[in-house]
Amino acid sequence: MQVAPESLRVALLGCGTVGTEVVRLVTSLGPELTSRVGAPLELSGIAVRDPDAARDPVVPRDLLTTDAESLATGADLVIELMGGIEPARSLVLAALRSGASVVTGNKALLAAHGPELYEAADAAGVDLAFEAAVAGAVPVVRGVRESLAGDRITRVLGIVNGTTNYVLDEMTTTGEGFDVALGRAQDLGYAEADPTEDVEGLDAAAKAAILASLAFHTRVSMSDVVVEGIRDITVDDVDAATRAGFVIKLLAVAERRRGRRDGIAVRVNPVLLPVSHPLSSVHGAFNAVYVEAEAAGQLMFYGPGAGGAPTAAAVLGDVVVAARRRVLGGRAPVESAHAALPMLGPDEVRTRYQMRMRVADRPGVLSQVSSIVAEHGVSIETVRQTIDDEISTERDAVLVVATHKATEAALAATAEALAGSDAVLEMVSVMRVEGE
Amino acid sequence: MQVAPESLRVALLGCGTVGTEVVRLVTSLGPELTSRVGAPLELSGIAVRDPDAARDPVVPRDLLTTDAESLATGADLVIELMGGIEPARSLVLAALRSGASVVTGNKALLAAHGPELYEAADAAGVDLAFEAAVAGAVPVVRGVRESLAGDRITRVLGIVNGTTNYVLDEMTTTGEGFDVALGRAQDLGYAEADPTEDVEGLDAAAKAAILASLAFHTRVSMSDVVVEGIRDITVDDVDAATRAGFVIKLLAVAERRRGRRDGIAVRVNPVLLPVSHPLSSVHGAFNAVYVEAEAAGQLMFYGPGAGGAPTAAAVLGDVVVAARRRVLGGRAPVESAHAALPMLGPDEVRTRYQMRMRVADRPGVLSQVSSIVAEHGVSIETVRQTIDDEISTERDAVLVVATHKATEAALAATAEALAGSDAVLEMVSVMRVEGE
Repeated sequence: MQVAPESLRVALLGCGTVGTEVVRLVTSLGPELTSRVGAPLELSGIAVRDPDAARDPVVPRDLLTTDAESLATGADLVIELMGGIEPARSLVLAALRSGASVVTGNKALLAAHGPELYEAADAAGVDLAFEAAVAGAVPVVRGVRESLAGDRITRVLGIVNGTTNYVLDEMTTTGEGFDVALGRAQDLGYAEADPTEDVEGLDAAAKAAILASLAFHTRVSMSDVVVEGIRDITVDDVDAATRAGFVIKLLAVAERRRGRRDGIAVRVNPVLLPVSHPLSSVHGAFNAVYVEAEAAGQLMFYGPGAGGAPTAAAVLGDVVVAARRRVLGGRAPVESAHAALPMLGPDEVRTRYQMRMRVADRPGVLSQVSSIVAEHGVSIETVRQTIDDEISTERDAVLVVATHKATEAALAATAEALAGSDAVLEMVSVMRVEGE
Repeated sequence: MQVAPESLRVALLGCGTVGTEVVRLVTSLGPELTSRVGAPLELSGIAVRDPDAARDPVVPRDLLTTDAESLATGADLVIELMGGIEPARSLVLAALRSGASVVTGNKALLAAHGPELYEAADAAGVDLAFEAAVAGAVPVVRGVRESLAGDRITRVLGIVNGTTNYVLDEMTTTGEGFDVALGRAQDLGYAEADPTEDVEGLDAAAKAAILASLAFHTRVSMSDVVVEGIRDITVDDVDAATRAGFVIKLLAVAERRRGRRDGIAVRVNPVLLPVSHPLSSVHGAFNAVYVEAEAAGQLMFYGPGAGGAPTAAAVLGDVVVAARRRVLGGRAPVESAHAALPMLGPDEVRTRYQMRMRVADRPGVLSQVSSIVAEHGVSIETVRQTIDDEISTERDAVLVVATHKATEAALAATAEALAGSDAVLEMVSVMRVEGE
């Protein structure tokens, strides 16, 4: 005769869109989850700020409490979906120290206080899982942490912010400007009323820091990420990219470089990506992360980057795996920061660039531009002269200069010198090129 | 003072292309793997048939042995890369029973004897991992088994055979026939001298059985998979697909249906896939698996489906995770077959179809065809009449009939009746349509 295993007490901190979907999944999949875990999951309570607020009827009102701390320290497993730093940080630490495993979707908390949380989990011998914190339902955290644990990752390119991907996609397909596209994203609920976190690249930067930490076994925080958003991208930029066989994407780029110094560089910025690249067909609010590794080659993880139900599915995947460990014993992978690689500066990282500039349409301009670029140690791959209806007038032309790999410092000096020369009437744009 | 943990003895059974790359990775990543595992991995021996055969110098000759059984039962962790059923099955069972965790890339073994192996692992309390058995380096086994453990998968569509994907891709881009494209695949080493396993869909069927077992928590074996290969696909089929906005892909399709009876159906066959579907841009020998789940929505896992180094990376990922469990304690997910869903028959599964037929070019043909289709209870979505240079002559036309979802039985009866009618001169092709 088998004795039914005791149920596991699961505490939920926060009950917004994702939390509500977590409750729905736990309720509707009940017996299936029991079979997969080996014990029943029992929702022991749901901590909220206002128990009297209107809620989806799937949320049992008798489980609501405002005493998050008692709830967090009296459970086997704590799901943290409050967002923000405090009180989330204190509650997660209290839960870990009380011996509970924690599943969180809080990227800001991880990017700011990851090491402290990892250490607390380690000291208590419990799990800290966070698949939902990066790219919603896209299972890239587990992929990088476990599937690629026997390989050496060289580069991670990610579309990890659905709002900006939607906006850039809209600009590309409709020819509308940034503000119109952003307004539509807001109408559809893809963008917040205050879209700063998304459009300035800060949301993507938090995810980039988490991905880089995992990929390179090195602690990377938000402040290590060089960030540039998409606010300055114009319809003209998008059109020029399309005509040249590119799409503009806001990418999180984390790479390991073995130059004079072995190290890593992490940044978020708009890039030109060839249409043939697998990431270029990631549309709308979908997310995808493309990982390059020495042995595995190129992998891609793709899926919905946000939304209540998809994010809840990522949370529940972590919950089932962590709960199974409470039943069968064992630990999730602990923090792996053994490599401790240095962050490289802008002089140590090289990228390809494309500069578009309006030039005077007279003999000698091309050679003048070429020699300014060469003087700064930057090597030109191609120069195209285009007649751009939007920009060029009868007397000007538009030059597009694609460079071989150059440091940011060299490129910035080049662009400045070009802008100051009499051949160049206007520097229209300077963009990085990735994925070639 | 910390005591260095004892090293883990890792035995390798089989040393072909993948085995050699496993040795290379273990050697070159040594200290990094030690950090990630928490203990050094020590290759304790390599079982081969002929120790005197020529080998890559990375393989230490003093580790070679023909005594696979002693090696397999004296290790902490056994990597099985021999392929085939015996002696792989006996050795894996012996290893598991001796208390070793096993990592295997042997899809044939798992598809034929999975339950027996799972039970042995379970009884011994050790891990049985097999990421490399399905789609090479594509981390879909872990994705389905763990990331989606808190969700309900409804459908899995996979390009899981690189050879056939390469052949179909070549036919599409070059307009060459099946035999020419297959010959090139053989020249490039993408196809075996005897390509039967690949082109008849048998290799994909073994992977489909494994994926379906994991996705639906139900034991599915090779014999449950309905299989059709790509040998009969013509250039004309490929051209017609292209003109209609489709690509032809050999897909493994595993789906859960909730009709009169809740159950699953698993098949491998060529399908028409809209060019807008993410799987349609999976080219050459790449593999990808597209998973639809109730909460997570649509996910896709993409990567190299074969090759020594990529497959070795998948093996090593499993090795690191299993080794870490030997250090930290705990178990991998055990077999989850709790759902035990029935396999549905051809009358219980419905798909969309596209029939192409050469018809007499005379009034009344369209209505005659339409009524034959309707008589068999099949609903027409669209009919297109095309002038097909390859097939139609002055006196004929080609009709393309796209149906709404119908059972295979109804469709087969319809196609037979059409072929026997005087309106239809020839049934050119009948294909399933997926991904719309």
